[in-house]
Amino acid sequence: MNEKGVLYLIATPIGNLEDITLRAIRILKEVDLIAAEDTRQTLKLLNHLGISKPLTSFFRHNESQKGAYIIKKILDGESVALVSDAGTPGISDPGEELVTLAIKNGIKISPIPGPVAAISGLIASGLPQDLHLKAFYQ
Amino acid sequence: MNEKGVLYLIATPIGNLEDITLRAIRILKEVDLIAAEDTRQTLKLLNHLGISKPLTSFFRHNESQKGAYIIKKILDGESVALVSDAGTPGISDPGEELVTLAIKNGIKISPIPGPVAAISGLIASGLPQDLHLKAFYQ
Repeated sequence: MNEKGVLYLIATPIGNLEDITLRAIRILKEVDLIAAEDTRQTLKLLNHLGISKPLTSFFRHNESQKGAYIIKKILDGESVALVSDAGTPGISDPGEELVTLAIKNGIKISPIPGPVAAISGLIASGLPQDLHLKAFYQ
Repeated sequence: MNEKGVLYLIATPIGNLEDITLRAIRILKEVDLIAAEDTRQTLKLLNHLGISKPLTSFFRHNESQKGAYIIKKILDGESVALVSDAGTPGISDPGEELVTLAIKNGIKISPIPGPVAAISGLIASGLPQDLHLKAFYQ
């Protein structure tokens, strides 16, 4: 294949396996490979969703080496989904370096939004949202 | 019914109708009433999901009056989902006053996480995430 693949950054559930979007599910079904911060955690999610797909581990301490491997796959035309343990990849999670490397290689990056740990935590606090959120956005 | 209902704060898609979680869809199907910032926008989403449910408008200028109506429904045992035009209710959207009123009345509030406009905007910028996100969280 001559065409480059896509790097998807997929937000995954935080705590509740139902907290995943329809688009995230579709993309996880469509990609060739899923790079996961914690493959056991991601396997639990994929099993819950009835998705069977090749998985590779991608965490802070193999980010450089595994990043090069993933970029090569995408340049060869495969599409890869990067998922973190929970929440949005690149936010308090590995992924920054891979995104930078993808940009340098002219790879299309497609972020799939979903639950964000910081926001979920703030809202789930049960206290009036406005106080927290105003502080958060200021 | 003697038991109080629940007030759900449901995050809805920003731009892409597929950006809604399985839990949000389930809750929208289960509640008795949906309070929407823009009923036309929410109707578009509900039609897309094949959900038919009573809708009431809830926006900044009817927040006090409509808030009292919604709280009464919940105290009577109905469950209500609050959705904003797009994204997470209470974040740059109406809802703060209703949440405060619900807390005062001892009503259970259940936030259903999903896409957050600020985060989606930052990630979708296409620029390296780390710079933006570090600035965002500092």
